[in-house]
Amino acid sequence: MKLRDLGEDRLIAQLVKDLAARPDVIVGPGDDCAVLRSPRPGEYLLFKTDCVVEGVHFSPNDKPIAVGWKAMMRTLSDFAAMSGSPQYALVTLAAAAEQEVRWMRQLYRGLRQAADCFRVALVGGETSGTSGPVVISISALGRVEKERCTLRSGGKPGDLLFVTGKLGGSFNGRHLRFVARIEEARWLTQKFQIHAMMDLSDGLGADLPRLAQASRLDFEVDESVIPRSGGCSIAQAINDGEDYELLFALSPRDAEKLGKKWRAKYPRLELTRIGRLILHASRLRQVTRHPFHGYIHFQ
Amino acid sequence: MKLRDLGEDRLIAQLVKDLAARPDVIVGPGDDCAVLRSPRPGEYLLFKTDCVVEGVHFSPNDKPIAVGWKAMMRTLSDFAAMSGSPQYALVTLAAAAEQEVRWMRQLYRGLRQAADCFRVALVGGETSGTSGPVVISISALGRVEKERCTLRSGGKPGDLLFVTGKLGGSFNGRHLRFVARIEEARWLTQKFQIHAMMDLSDGLGADLPRLAQASRLDFEVDESVIPRSGGCSIAQAINDGEDYELLFALSPRDAEKLGKKWRAKYPRLELTRIGRLILHASRLRQVTRHPFHGYIHFQ
Repeated sequence: MKLRDLGEDRLIAQLVKDLAARPDVIVGPGDDCAVLRSPRPGEYLLFKTDCVVEGVHFSPNDKPIAVGWKAMMRTLSDFAAMSGSPQYALVTLAAAAEQEVRWMRQLYRGLRQAADCFRVALVGGETSGTSGPVVISISALGRVEKERCTLRSGGKPGDLLFVTGKLGGSFNGRHLRFVARIEEARWLTQKFQIHAMMDLSDGLGADLPRLAQASRLDFEVDESVIPRSGGCSIAQAINDGEDYELLFALSPRDAEKLGKKWRAKYPRLELTRIGRLILHASRLRQVTRHPFHGYIHFQ
Repeated sequence: MKLRDLGEDRLIAQLVKDLAARPDVIVGPGDDCAVLRSPRPGEYLLFKTDCVVEGVHFSPNDKPIAVGWKAMMRTLSDFAAMSGSPQYALVTLAAAAEQEVRWMRQLYRGLRQAADCFRVALVGGETSGTSGPVVISISALGRVEKERCTLRSGGKPGDLLFVTGKLGGSFNGRHLRFVARIEEARWLTQKFQIHAMMDLSDGLGADLPRLAQASRLDFEVDESVIPRSGGCSIAQAINDGEDYELLFALSPRDAEKLGKKWRAKYPRLELTRIGRLILHASRLRQVTRHPFHGYIHFQ
């Protein structure tokens, strides 16, 4: 069987099954970051890696400074998903010998500008030749207070589902200049009991089912209210991916206060209630009128 | 200018210059691992990433279980270089949609077997499609006691230089099955004051000058005593690379005791005194009779 026929989620599930449990590994594969015991009581360590590949996540014609920005922000966005603070990052870079040094220098400018936004220190890197497209992998290490660490799995039946910003059409340019929602996520967990959270990288259609499944719940979504970027259809908002917005679940009793406080704090950033988590109603997944799958890897 | 014309060391030097100093970053880019302040007094955190690329570090015909083993061991070898203990690892994998799932499963078996050797927990991974060769990047996190953390920069004038094992010819197969010298490195720093250490990945001819330069010293090597793998010339032992042996410097007054204790502890692993660190004798680098450059990236 080829990767194309299996898909990313099933591949990863196969690869990491039977990993031995360890008391120092709080959350292993399957959430946005790995969550590890910290020597500092009251905190966890967060550890994450991600990559961008030329021809998949960026085009050879994109400005290298924007490519670097995106590569770093993608990994930092996973810290937003856990309401964590990234602290250190490493860069692994595979590039052809024919690649221009100027291109690399601009790439690093973008990496550093993105890291500087959140006072993340670039503490090392590794380079390799390749005969293929440029691959940039960013690993980052950070921390989060135990009581503010938001997993995908903490959703409760009846929780309301919210997304920040607008979805869809990111490949028109937004995917190269987004800012990881770290500040917003930190604010959310400081003020509210967020039950479950993740960042939307593969699109709501792929990521919401992951959050629901991790919480062992199903979900209902009112597709007509999904916030859409200008010119996007509902299907695009659901399936385009690369939004890097937050998706989170909280109790209905906190919803009104959240809306009010959010508008006061972030008047220019939309926050939309799109649906709720529910108990499994039947063995059939709820029907949606639009395609609901998100970005499909290996296709 | 192309990467080919600049080379890896000068590229990295350009990319990381002007990084802001931070009190929590003990050692940033340029050593085997990044060394970071740990919440645990008496320890540092170690953080490292490395990668293997199909067609560069392994061939499409190599067994995937051996490729996984190598990918993991390469990163762990950098922990040996600092005398540290790796604890957690993450995998980033770029592969074509046509790649066989069976190949991936075997790759992961190799990754996990190598990680298990040192009780390293595989805590997550990320996959991406690519139109090019397979790229596997491994990031790892670990720790080391402050007084046992061995940098490249700690060499002193007159220190004797030692290498473990035999050098050269690794591409005949050894590069796919080596074991990172973590145990040996831990033993060395438990028993001796090791001034400087690194692992030999690009070959003695590339790596020894790096250690000497980091220590702001020059070096003398007796090429005739460099331990060679069977069938290898001196030039191959110096330049082939991928040895993953330890190179370290210690005071001459400890040398005799080291030799004796080493033979008792590791009777089947050679330890060879190959030369010494010296003050810069002149503005010219010492002349060696054989080519002395190691593996050249981007060529």
